[in-house]
Amino acid sequence: MEIYLDHAATTNTDKRVFEAMLPYFEEHFGNPSSQHGYGRTANKAVSFAKEQAAKILGAKTGEIYLTSGGTESDNWAIKGIAEAAGKGHIITTQVEHHAVLDCCVYLEKKRGFRVTYLPVNEEGLINTEELEKAIAPDTVLISVMFANNETGVIMPVRNIGGIAKSHGIPFHTDAVQAVGRVPINVAELGIDLLSISAHKLYGPKGIGALYIKDGITPERFMHGGGQEKGLRAGTYNSPGAAGLGAALRIADESAEKDNAHHHALAKRLEDGLLKIAGTRINGANASRLAGYVNASFDGIDSLALMVRLDFEGIAVSTGSACTSGSVKPSYVLRAMGRDENEARAALRFTIGRDNTERQIDSVISLITKFVGELRAITPFAQKNGEKHFA
Amino acid sequence: MEIYLDHAATTNTDKRVFEAMLPYFEEHFGNPSSQHGYGRTANKAVSFAKEQAAKILGAKTGEIYLTSGGTESDNWAIKGIAEAAGKGHIITTQVEHHAVLDCCVYLEKKRGFRVTYLPVNEEGLINTEELEKAIAPDTVLISVMFANNETGVIMPVRNIGGIAKSHGIPFHTDAVQAVGRVPINVAELGIDLLSISAHKLYGPKGIGALYIKDGITPERFMHGGGQEKGLRAGTYNSPGAAGLGAALRIADESAEKDNAHHHALAKRLEDGLLKIAGTRINGANASRLAGYVNASFDGIDSLALMVRLDFEGIAVSTGSACTSGSVKPSYVLRAMGRDENEARAALRFTIGRDNTERQIDSVISLITKFVGELRAITPFAQKNGEKHFA
Repeated sequence: MEIYLDHAATTNTDKRVFEAMLPYFEEHFGNPSSQHGYGRTANKAVSFAKEQAAKILGAKTGEIYLTSGGTESDNWAIKGIAEAAGKGHIITTQVEHHAVLDCCVYLEKKRGFRVTYLPVNEEGLINTEELEKAIAPDTVLISVMFANNETGVIMPVRNIGGIAKSHGIPFHTDAVQAVGRVPINVAELGIDLLSISAHKLYGPKGIGALYIKDGITPERFMHGGGQEKGLRAGTYNSPGAAGLGAALRIADESAEKDNAHHHALAKRLEDGLLKIAGTRINGANASRLAGYVNASFDGIDSLALMVRLDFEGIAVSTGSACTSGSVKPSYVLRAMGRDENEARAALRFTIGRDNTERQIDSVISLITKFVGELRAITPFAQKNGEKHFA
Repeated sequence: MEIYLDHAATTNTDKRVFEAMLPYFEEHFGNPSSQHGYGRTANKAVSFAKEQAAKILGAKTGEIYLTSGGTESDNWAIKGIAEAAGKGHIITTQVEHHAVLDCCVYLEKKRGFRVTYLPVNEEGLINTEELEKAIAPDTVLISVMFANNETGVIMPVRNIGGIAKSHGIPFHTDAVQAVGRVPINVAELGIDLLSISAHKLYGPKGIGALYIKDGITPERFMHGGGQEKGLRAGTYNSPGAAGLGAALRIADESAEKDNAHHHALAKRLEDGLLKIAGTRINGANASRLAGYVNASFDGIDSLALMVRLDFEGIAVSTGSACTSGSVKPSYVLRAMGRDENEARAALRFTIGRDNTERQIDSVISLITKFVGELRAITPFAQKNGEKHFA
């Protein structure tokens, strides 16, 4: 059995995406910045990616900058705006992806910026009144994710955009989970900078984009050649660009159908999991990305459950940051008010285009079985133990 | 006719490299950082890339960090070392690639560092005595390229490494042109940081590596997830990593054969071009990468010649930084003492594995013809005109 339910971590490269990339490896292999025919042909991939990104976001092609992925886009947006300002105050949230959080921590600890990390309520949402209150005369950036990578909870982006605009503060959103899953119009939503990652939407790894609204001027992040009006140096990844463009085009075309599919399977999964006693869906009452299910199973160490599922060929995520073997409970769920045990008991299921009802039913049935088994060997008295099922 | 003689700009992706990448798009598509089976399988590509890079450099796998390419590697090395030091003095050269130069200019203009840009002699080489004299008590970094991207001239890396070591200063080298063309052993040469780009050696675009010697600690450049011991965040580009690994392995295996081929064709090309009156090979008396020929044709605007060749399907480079239509004479050749006309009269030919004697003969014959024609319509009196053949 092979069932992949970790589409928030990464997706397979769609066959059509791969086919769009194919010619740029061996045939149209030129450097897109070269002045000769090989260069001009390769550059078509770059233009294509920008056109598709601009189209899906309601932006101009000149406002799209290709990067190596979501992490670079976040780094450039946040550190670039901070650096251009020189000093000041930044507002973000406690539940951002590390690519945003770690930039903010760096700016705070090493570059003298002040940072407000807004709390979230039990559904994972910030309070926009608190956001507005946090604004200081020297606030230089607001960075709030579009949708959370662990829960799929969608932030009140339109409100945030409005507040940012009324105060004249640039608004960046990490939208790597959201692009292709929800409609996004940057102008309507008041977004000034937006991060995209191709591999989250059936595109290849190693490429992404940053939307930068005309007039917003972050400092350069990647210094060097004259690519991207001199703002982002580095040889264009032309196969990657072709893949990003194709992935965005397909996402745009199939969004409605995908959404219905994701929504139906997620409901089926939630209904099934909720039949297991002591199960809670995190962020259940918030507006969420279709296909994102984050469930806590009382008394369970989710890593043990994940490993058990992995053994059966089922891929899910603990939704926690795991580095070099040590496992910490999810800071996102902790920020949502879950205690350490509850946060440690959560699994993230993220559904994709190719998942089927039958797969969902298999997963429900196995989890029901494994949760029972794990609870039998892990009495509640031990559940807060320091041991890790590595 | 299609003849590609611009391998210093980029190379085609070798079929064997492409085949190594192939499984990681649709089949082994997991996120290499994921804890489940999909992740573990994908992570093999990452390990493979590091093993091959370590092997070709005589380094340890733990000293290899994957990046999005040469520009990122240079940015990380230079800005990362500078940032870790906080302030001080940097030594580099006037002929570095922009990915190095622009980082240094940024550190100088916006971050308060002092930078010494060492001059070069008429062969394009720095004087290592001048380098040693330039060292100040607060010198925090020496960054000198391994081989120049316009001329192929190989810098006295071993001497530089020795000087850097004796003063306890980290030595970074941008080796994107050299890796795979000349043997490099970082320990023997005294190199502390070294930049690699896959697409310069028949690998894919969008991936590269930075060698960082154990004990050298640049500040993080890409903040976020825990990849690369927390030092370089961002989802691993697993297909790219597989491609980088395969490209390095092939380069290592075929270096001797490639070198002989490049050397023979370069000699044939130089001999042919030198039969045209008023031709000069730039860097002719220096040790150069095999296959790099930089030739100046008296009285010629090389952009016009390049465009004429492009029209015939022949790809060469003017070797000058061209951004948004305005063409400046090569700063590398200017630093080598060529006047503006001579620098504007240079074409770069870089030979690759698939080039043939017959292709070289065709190019010689066409250039001989076109140089004659261009000289006929561009009297010497006009050659210093401000007009550009755009």
